[in-house]
Amino acid sequence: MAKHIGKQSIKFENKISVISTASTVGTKEGEGPLGQYFDVILRDAVDGEDSWEKAESKIVKDNLSLAVKKAELNMSDIEYIFSGDLLNQGTGSAYGIRDLERPFFGLYGACSTFGESMCLGAVMIESGGASKVLVGASSHFCAAEKQFRFPLGLGTQRPLTSTWTVTGDGAAVLSKDGNAPFITGMTTGKIVDFGITDANNMGAAMATAAADVILTNLRDFNLSPDYYDLIITGDLGYVGKELTIDLLKKEGVDISKNYTDCGIEIYDRESQDTHSGGSGCACSAVTFSAYFFDKMKKGELNKILFVPTGALMSSTSVQQGESIPGIAHAVVLENSFEGGI
Amino acid sequence: MAKHIGKQSIKFENKISVISTASTVGTKEGEGPLGQYFDVILRDAVDGEDSWEKAESKIVKDNLSLAVKKAELNMSDIEYIFSGDLLNQGTGSAYGIRDLERPFFGLYGACSTFGESMCLGAVMIESGGASKVLVGASSHFCAAEKQFRFPLGLGTQRPLTSTWTVTGDGAAVLSKDGNAPFITGMTTGKIVDFGITDANNMGAAMATAAADVILTNLRDFNLSPDYYDLIITGDLGYVGKELTIDLLKKEGVDISKNYTDCGIEIYDRESQDTHSGGSGCACSAVTFSAYFFDKMKKGELNKILFVPTGALMSSTSVQQGESIPGIAHAVVLENSFEGGI
Repeated sequence: MAKHIGKQSIKFENKISVISTASTVGTKEGEGPLGQYFDVILRDAVDGEDSWEKAESKIVKDNLSLAVKKAELNMSDIEYIFSGDLLNQGTGSAYGIRDLERPFFGLYGACSTFGESMCLGAVMIESGGASKVLVGASSHFCAAEKQFRFPLGLGTQRPLTSTWTVTGDGAAVLSKDGNAPFITGMTTGKIVDFGITDANNMGAAMATAAADVILTNLRDFNLSPDYYDLIITGDLGYVGKELTIDLLKKEGVDISKNYTDCGIEIYDRESQDTHSGGSGCACSAVTFSAYFFDKMKKGELNKILFVPTGALMSSTSVQQGESIPGIAHAVVLENSFEGGI
Repeated sequence: MAKHIGKQSIKFENKISVISTASTVGTKEGEGPLGQYFDVILRDAVDGEDSWEKAESKIVKDNLSLAVKKAELNMSDIEYIFSGDLLNQGTGSAYGIRDLERPFFGLYGACSTFGESMCLGAVMIESGGASKVLVGASSHFCAAEKQFRFPLGLGTQRPLTSTWTVTGDGAAVLSKDGNAPFITGMTTGKIVDFGITDANNMGAAMATAAADVILTNLRDFNLSPDYYDLIITGDLGYVGKELTIDLLKKEGVDISKNYTDCGIEIYDRESQDTHSGGSGCACSAVTFSAYFFDKMKKGELNKILFVPTGALMSSTSVQQGESIPGIAHAVVLENSFEGGI
């Protein structure tokens, strides 16, 4: 049985292993600094389909299937799929997963969805209800821009605070049997609203939620930030990362020495012109699945706090003048189970 | 520890009690046959807010708070909230839950969301990660029509296969300690696509998913339909209910004697002019929370199979010519834990 720890954390009693991951990304992400780590790099934004939305669903289907194949399993071995995306009504996942014929839990945590998938997948295994689950999240630059901001054809100028939605899908197979790394704990985020109303400044909108859940994780498990080899937020970008460091400094916690953000890792700042960095559900999902998972497997990282971050607005809520609430979920991943949190 | 049973079911080892429910509905639902059972009936569609979307969020917040109050708890006693709705990016839930300051898992299962909430809430308790969780789902007729079909002001005629989206929120507090009814099992649905492309015929789009999960539940637990006092689908309406009965008859299973649908129960067929019945996340959520929970508490029903049903399309996917995939999740609720499944 898991233990509820502190205010909003869980420590797992079972060894919940991440037995495989898979990552599929778009051309731009493939050209970035992490290009060599991705399993599949697409040649264009439609991937043989006739719309961006259908392309996203194809990416979901293919990448989830790849994660299962890399685990040397068949799709029928997977007891549950947990997945979500940014498209209205989660159609990126729904149409992608339709042909996989597995029991499905659709999630929406905006760009924090991969964190939510990992947490609920781990809880499912801990409950005894499953031994193998597949978790994932996806996003698509073109489909997201069209839906949340402006049609791409308009050529609207992007402000410097804006981030670039990652095209891709990240997925992992979690299992009650397997090797390191293990999901040893989790801290589920509350919705935190900083009062930001600019849909082109999501880093700021999410920074309070990230800071809140990191602080709660450290307090719940009674840890200092240097317990972790690295603390990794999802898609705050340059603007949000600095804000998160500042917010935690005010609480007496310095994460500046062992902290990065997937939105900063995934694109080259100088040559790729994304302004504040990467974002989207796929940002943390593919960066973890490709890069950080690899670093854990090689023992270059042994204890990480992985914190996918999300901004919970819609175009309707922004048009109605609502501020943008943020949420973030923290997943503790460790190579050593016994010596862990 | 829960047990994974058969193809896609779980039997809970812990007594997961539904300790309270709350239901808030719109005026039309309040005028229907279940009017006397609802906790709150709103006087109009905006509930003091300046948009339908903001009204939905207020309903979510107020109704979740009411469920906690009826359980004689404080919101701070709730360890996790699981909730979702039909609005783009789940803003009905997000803005409603923002002020409640509890760890939050956002879900999207279209109108099956209340089933998904109950299942994942129960799994969370079974895992040991929580002792009290709050689960819910909401929808709003005006906001949903505007988003999925036509602006209401157009006065577009509705075909006879169309259903009426329920305005409201249904919620329940689940606890590891408490009295009957208990959630004793669950069967998670797969996405099933019948090839329906008419967004005004969702009953047909969801019927195959409903039939599939009911059949799987009966086979996984080795039960005949008459094990249950009542099998209750979420929002298939008159069209979808008949289809579900027919589909199961072809499999040699007759559920016609002990089967109803929340979309049929909630409105009066003759006087309320909803055509095929009610739909929306709130349809099953409020009908269970108000009516069927009451019948279980009184012992008039002792074993039910509650099957919220969802249609996983968006307006974009419909415009792109995609068919409408369905999903349904089955929750086993029983008054006797020891003598249960």
